[in-house]
Amino acid sequence: MKRFSIAVIPGDGIGREVVPAALNVLDTAASAHGGIAFDYTEFPWSCEYYLEHGEMMPEDGLEQLKKFDAILLGAVGNPQLVPDHVSLWGLLINIRRGFQQSINIRPAKYFEGLRSPLADPKQFDFIVVRENSEGEYSEVGGRIHQGSSQIAIQNSIFTRPGVENALRYGFELAKGRKGHVTSATKSNGIVHTMPFWDEVFADVKADYPEIEAESTHIDALAAFFVTKPEAFDVVVASNLFGDILTDIGGAVMGSIGIAPAANINLSGEFPSMFEPVHGSAPDIVGKHIANPIGQIWTAKMMLDHLGETELGAGILSAVEEVTKNGVKTPDIGGSATTEEVTAAICEQLKK
Amino acid sequence: MKRFSIAVIPGDGIGREVVPAALNVLDTAASAHGGIAFDYTEFPWSCEYYLEHGEMMPEDGLEQLKKFDAILLGAVGNPQLVPDHVSLWGLLINIRRGFQQSINIRPAKYFEGLRSPLADPKQFDFIVVRENSEGEYSEVGGRIHQGSSQIAIQNSIFTRPGVENALRYGFELAKGRKGHVTSATKSNGIVHTMPFWDEVFADVKADYPEIEAESTHIDALAAFFVTKPEAFDVVVASNLFGDILTDIGGAVMGSIGIAPAANINLSGEFPSMFEPVHGSAPDIVGKHIANPIGQIWTAKMMLDHLGETELGAGILSAVEEVTKNGVKTPDIGGSATTEEVTAAICEQLKK
Ligand SMILES: CC(C)[C@H](C(=O)O)[C@@H](O)C(=O)O
Ligand SMILES: CC(C)[C@H](C(=O)O)[C@@H](O)C(=O)O
Repeated sequence: MKRFSIAVIPGDGIGREVVPAALNVLDTAASAHGGIAFDYTEFPWSCEYYLEHGEMMPEDGLEQLKKFDAILLGAVGNPQLVPDHVSLWGLLINIRRGFQQSINIRPAKYFEGLRSPLADPKQFDFIVVRENSEGEYSEVGGRIHQGSSQIAIQNSIFTRPGVENALRYGFELAKGRKGHVTSATKSNGIVHTMPFWDEVFADVKADYPEIEAESTHIDALAAFFVTKPEAFDVVVASNLFGDILTDIGGAVMGSIGIAPAANINLSGEFPSMFEPVHGSAPDIVGKHIANPIGQIWTAKMMLDHLGETELGAGILSAVEEVTKNGVKTPDIGGSATTEEVTAAICEQLKK
Repeated sequence: MKRFSIAVIPGDGIGREVVPAALNVLDTAASAHGGIAFDYTEFPWSCEYYLEHGEMMPEDGLEQLKKFDAILLGAVGNPQLVPDHVSLWGLLINIRRGFQQSINIRPAKYFEGLRSPLADPKQFDFIVVRENSEGEYSEVGGRIHQGSSQIAIQNSIFTRPGVENALRYGFELAKGRKGHVTSATKSNGIVHTMPFWDEVFADVKADYPEIEAESTHIDALAAFFVTKPEAFDVVVASNLFGDILTDIGGAVMGSIGIAPAANINLSGEFPSMFEPVHGSAPDIVGKHIANPIGQIWTAKMMLDHLGETELGAGILSAVEEVTKNGVKTPDIGGSATTEEVTAAICEQLKK
């Protein structure tokens, strides 16, 4: 029996509803397959935890997580309880950075049976590789003066290794896909960091003559995700641009509720973390309408990372089958509950 | 006879194709209406001008433009000839900043007869107010080290007046519209400037108890522009966020080619500048397929600014009528040329 130890952090809001769904699906898939099992250890780190302890996770939190094969996270944040930048930087971004999860990958694909907001959705299938450790998300900056003279400054910091790792990861990924890379830039407006990004792109591109690669400004690219998502294969973007693009990716798929994500530690020194694109959605908590597919597809990405690609593929097929059969939460045009969708996927896996 | 003096800068690429179209429409509308005339002075500032003169505009360029009632600009940029950050900062952004055009406004609305990429486009009608003078677009920053140690730093700088002006403009605008303001933020990821933005938003909001106002993260907001554009009225955003959102606005309308924009000088000390959202699109130059509507609608915004709202309204109705009748360029599903669309709009105006 192959056993994987998984750290589970449901977090806030609907994270606590969709994580149990994903664990259910993982266990069902594993026992249908045989020879694989998961040991889960749950951590209660969340905004409620903060209210009790004054911190989003204990000081030795990373130490506690370090020994796991992977981390499965739901969603973090509840601005009613804790300001977002406190909750996110104290937990989510703390783990991304502490474990050097420098790459975030988020696929988006056309799903039969999903109600896309697009009039004529083609068979798109792309993946966004997001630089996940630096860039626009930085603690460097601050304020000066008070009142009407106040000024706030934010430093975006791009390093050569940070940018190069993301781009190289994208080119490598493209080799096993359609062989096309798009680099998201804004070198016409952002005059220091984005021309730098473009230079690194040109250097990396030179190492991959077999890959077709081009650079597109983020504003145009955001529009193209709506008007021609089928034109893309691998899109590499900075931390902020990747954040925005992947929400649009979720939207054109039909719902942000189905979009999955992985935060990858490239060196293998630390565990990688798997968390869906959607947030904690406090407004729909307790209504049993949270779409579990984002979390379940995220669990599939975790399996791929752990080398269990067959198990992962089985889960994605089951999700597609159930969706096609119309067992769907309201956000994608159905009337099923979180629990009903999960049960249907488990049923499908047992077949 | 009321005469307006207009500085005309066609710029690069299709700017030179759509600006003549807009002038044609302006003149036709004015003579059909009577009592109004335009005096145009054209400036050849562009990337080709740069190749000849080593600068995008002469050193006393702003001095030359200062006396005009308004500036009508086509599009700037041709990366084959001049790097984008050089051409844009040397002309477009130079004018925006030199003339303290601190607000950029860009409407988006559902147009009958347009082929929206959305499956079920509702009657959306929103306007993005973009901070246009500071923020992520800044010349502050630079690089250190070489090769694999190189680091690039970009400073985003937000001042209290900059942020407050944009937000206050948005709230004022909402008064005469549906009374709803959305503030684009990212205070969960961008920890210095965006919480500052949120604080100014809270302060300004307190002055407008009659306006319904809420704050939404840019990633979610970008997705909502696709999934529920009809939910918005006035959206206020930083320079970069406004840039991205307005391209998505163009996309959901049916084509970036129809999206108009105005760069407003609030004090009245300097002329305001009117330029469509689309770029110079070097790839379609000379094909007679450039959509003139973005530039024509932009000219309508210029008329509004000059106080000729009746003339402006007439132009927009003519555009809508012609579009509904199917005289459209290929980007919005027709087969007419730039010239044919322009002629049809002029015909309509003469009726
Ligand atoms: C060309 C570029 C610098 C410009 C911007 O980002 O402001 C353009 O995209 C726009 O939106 O007007
Ligand atoms: C919650 C927030 C800090 C986070 C981000 O911007 O990275 C989220 O939007 C995401 O995309 O994972």
